[in-house]
Amino acid sequence: MPFIRNLWYVAAWSNELGEVPIGRTILGEPIVLFRTADGTAAAMEDRCPHRHAPLSLGRVEGDFLRCMYHGMRFAADGSCDKAPGTTTTPAGCRTRSFPIAEKSSWIWVWMGDAALADPERIPTGFGLDSPEWALREGVLDYAANYELINDNLCDLSHLDFVHEKTLGYATGAKWMPVQPRVTSVEDGLTVERWFCDHLLSPMAPDRVDSWNMYEYLLPGVFLMTTHAFPVGTAAACNFERSTAMPVYRRVEQQAVTPIDERQTRYFYASGVDARIASPEFLDGLMVVINAAFAEDRAMIEAQQRIWDRTPADLQKVFMPHDKAPALFRRLVARRLAAEALDSRSTREEDDAAC
Amino acid sequence: MPFIRNLWYVAAWSNELGEVPIGRTILGEPIVLFRTADGTAAAMEDRCPHRHAPLSLGRVEGDFLRCMYHGMRFAADGSCDKAPGTTTTPAGCRTRSFPIAEKSSWIWVWMGDAALADPERIPTGFGLDSPEWALREGVLDYAANYELINDNLCDLSHLDFVHEKTLGYATGAKWMPVQPRVTSVEDGLTVERWFCDHLLSPMAPDRVDSWNMYEYLLPGVFLMTTHAFPVGTAAACNFERSTAMPVYRRVEQQAVTPIDERQTRYFYASGVDARIASPEFLDGLMVVINAAFAEDRAMIEAQQRIWDRTPADLQKVFMPHDKAPALFRRLVARRLAAEALDSRSTREEDDAAC
Amino acid sequence: MPFIRNLWYVAAWSNELGEVPIGRTILGEPIVLFRTADGTAAAMEDRCPHRHAPLSLGRVEGDFLRCMYHGMRFAADGSCDKAPGTTTTPAGCRTRSFPIAEKSSWIWVWMGDAALADPERIPTGFGLDSPEWALREGVLDYAANYELINDNLCDLSHLDFVHEKTLGYATGAKWMPVQPRVTSVEDGLTVERWFCDHLLSPMAPDRVDSWNMYEYLLPGVFLMTTHAFPVGTAAACNFERSTAMPVYRRVEQQAVTPIDERQTRYFYASGVDARIASPEFLDGLMVVINAAFAEDRAMIEAQQRIWDRTPADLQKVFMPHDKAPALFRRLVARRLAAEALDSRSTREEDDAAC
Repeated sequence: MPFIRNLWYVAAWSNELGEVPIGRTILGEPIVLFRTADGTAAAMEDRCPHRHAPLSLGRVEGDFLRCMYHGMRFAADGSCDKAPGTTTTPAGCRTRSFPIAEKSSWIWVWMGDAALADPERIPTGFGLDSPEWALREGVLDYAANYELINDNLCDLSHLDFVHEKTLGYATGAKWMPVQPRVTSVEDGLTVERWFCDHLLSPMAPDRVDSWNMYEYLLPGVFLMTTHAFPVGTAAACNFERSTAMPVYRRVEQQAVTPIDERQTRYFYASGVDARIASPEFLDGLMVVINAAFAEDRAMIEAQQRIWDRTPADLQKVFMPHDKAPALFRRLVARRLAAEALDSRSTREEDDAAC
Repeated sequence: MPFIRNLWYVAAWSNELGEVPIGRTILGEPIVLFRTADGTAAAMEDRCPHRHAPLSLGRVEGDFLRCMYHGMRFAADGSCDKAPGTTTTPAGCRTRSFPIAEKSSWIWVWMGDAALADPERIPTGFGLDSPEWALREGVLDYAANYELINDNLCDLSHLDFVHEKTLGYATGAKWMPVQPRVTSVEDGLTVERWFCDHLLSPMAPDRVDSWNMYEYLLPGVFLMTTHAFPVGTAAACNFERSTAMPVYRRVEQQAVTPIDERQTRYFYASGVDARIASPEFLDGLMVVINAAFAEDRAMIEAQQRIWDRTPADLQKVFMPHDKAPALFRRLVARRLAAEALDSRSTREEDDAAC
Repeated sequence: MPFIRNLWYVAAWSNELGEVPIGRTILGEPIVLFRTADGTAAAMEDRCPHRHAPLSLGRVEGDFLRCMYHGMRFAADGSCDKAPGTTTTPAGCRTRSFPIAEKSSWIWVWMGDAALADPERIPTGFGLDSPEWALREGVLDYAANYELINDNLCDLSHLDFVHEKTLGYATGAKWMPVQPRVTSVEDGLTVERWFCDHLLSPMAPDRVDSWNMYEYLLPGVFLMTTHAFPVGTAAACNFERSTAMPVYRRVEQQAVTPIDERQTRYFYASGVDARIASPEFLDGLMVVINAAFAEDRAMIEAQQRIWDRTPADLQKVFMPHDKAPALFRRLVARRLAAEALDSRSTREEDDAAC
């Protein structure tokens, strides 16, 4: 099993789902998302139990989703409400529903054992509708395995090279020389660093110390905050987190969701303090962000093609900045192993019960 | 072997084949079609025995087809007529020819044991040149297995949903509420039903009873007739076939030919009584027909993609309208099993003879 | 192993490689080409040992190539020069470099054991910068296995059919009736023939005898010379090579390089005596050449698709003109077998040494 199942995955931006159902493939499984009459999001297998046609080509009718091949109709819990051509609902006529939640402007779907789904464990992002932040969002599909994108996001030293002329330039900082502090937390990592005495941006003459911190949480949720302070702040707080009021703040909210083993969907939003954001500023920000993510995609898809032509046992050289990607890969591997063990135990119990 | 071989398959509309040979893949086999000097259609393996180049890139020369790679020339029976660069025809230099026939405006090719090919067993359609009917034809390729298209054509209750705004609307009838009478015949099924007291068409105020009957014959030949009568006719003839003169008649002639396991070619024609057909009427008819078949294709190709991501042993729910598709799938499976058995017996006889 | 490794392969035209590195896949292996400060070409695995990203997306810095993912920098010998984020170069941080040479306007890369690479064994072509010849060059990619292209180039009798209206017409000769003299040489074949008393070209009324000779050398290097003489020359020299001064001369320089088992890159140049060449003449020549190679590609890619649907053990008919392709296929097979044997012996020696 190449995917961790007992996790909340970002399936869509909340604003992607309106009155029309949408079909998504997540962890190789076809999923349909739709909203019931009161706007509540629902997720089911995108597979009508009748002829295995896609429900995502269906029609929302109040609280129900109707398959538009032969008209079977389903409630959000997957139960069949109407089966045209018969007066009784056939036995076994239901589709699997998935635990679902909306939080921080994302629709999250739990892909594993429904009994374990706990909405409290969904990470908290910034959201597109926060009064504090002004964000703009986007979506990008990668022809690459999700772990290559995790690697990329866990090690931002690539900004100096991949994004030399976009993010590397725009942030005014050099990322490679500074080793961040990487800390394992439940379900992920935190990565923190100070950049001292650098230009706030190519357009601003001010020099600042800036503190950059992000969480990278399973399955691939990236939540970053950057705070800029007067020069000297970093040293004054002994390179710990400062409690002073920053002069400038930025945030990033991103998520990596496997479509299948070779395709990945990337949800991203970038923003600044709502008090200083203008539409023109956000337009300009997204020009840089979209250019930068096109650079990442070009590199990572090319890297995937190289991996495809590389023996699996060929060693890679470990560099200090690989600490975070390596920790995160180990975390993924541990979870995969634990789920494999669980599913083996379950099968053995089932066998013993027979 | 995923295909029944001992059957006549529709390879082309007769009017598709002129002076230029055409290459077709049928049941995964490359086939070339061409016409000899007197216009007789011929079918051979699309594979020159010399370097296995495609004869379909060749040139017709009278009764012969010349490979345009190195000039080998073949008669319609597959024998080599000229082998440039040598004065003798090399031993074993022949390509396989296939039994072929033209009937009802289709070119039919027998893909199995030539000794069993009986042109008398080719189904009789309406034809594009019938004095009785005026038909228009088309061709559509599906990225889907042929059995999904068989299912679709054996169960027309999908008209109310897939074609709600095209055929479902245009026929003025509701298909789902009426269970047709399904009868097994040699090589297929007949499917019959009456629609009572419905609008003849959205444009016509007349109400009619209409009788709809089609044959669905191996490998996937769909021949449908619809007769409309004054309201009351159905009850008067006790819902059997009426011998009265219909006020309106329509026909459909379609065939499903596997290209390979994942691609299928669909030949279709639709028409009406020649006495009432005008070019404008047929133009309008084909707008609806082409729109409807695009709807089928969108649904079936999406269904194929869902099947691709579905475990083969996942059950499907059986509904009353599935009777005809289920019977036809069983017929296909029986024929496949019989041919597998035959080919095993033949191999054993061959072994015993050694 | 489907490819002979111990050979010089054409990787690019010399003029394709400037200041920007280029990535090529050769024999299924990703290769990066770049030029050091003095213009010397270098070839390495297109795979950074750090994260296996492509060096071909990197940047040339003097004598070094820098990976633009995380900034590792490599010399042309594959050694790591700089590893950002650390003061020491990590152990094992090197990429494989390949022996490389430039000759006859091509960049050649040795894909096998570097100890066996001998630049003296690189075939000598005409070159784009020869004072004697004026050539124009091109590149074409095939979706086909390289052996189908070898077959095509070893047997030019196809000119009468594939190129009936291009090269066959332009050369004014009939290729099929003349059996060439085929001679095995080290690493390949020579193929020679006289065409007697034919039009020099469709535009020229002069009749000539012309002598056509080419070498076809491993891995797929085609070097052809055509000399035209007054009618009678062939007989006068007893159909051997004439030492007389030709009235007209043409040359072709081509190479076939496998990208992988199903894709092949074809490098070609065509030219005439520099003293008579004008830009307009060469423009016209390339129109014919490019049209002809498009004809080859259409045929060979279609042939590949037929082979894909053909059982591997289906016999092919042998024709007299197949002598050269058959000899060349045998040579390829012998070399493949020898390399397989060598690599087995090496493994056994390694085992014995343990």
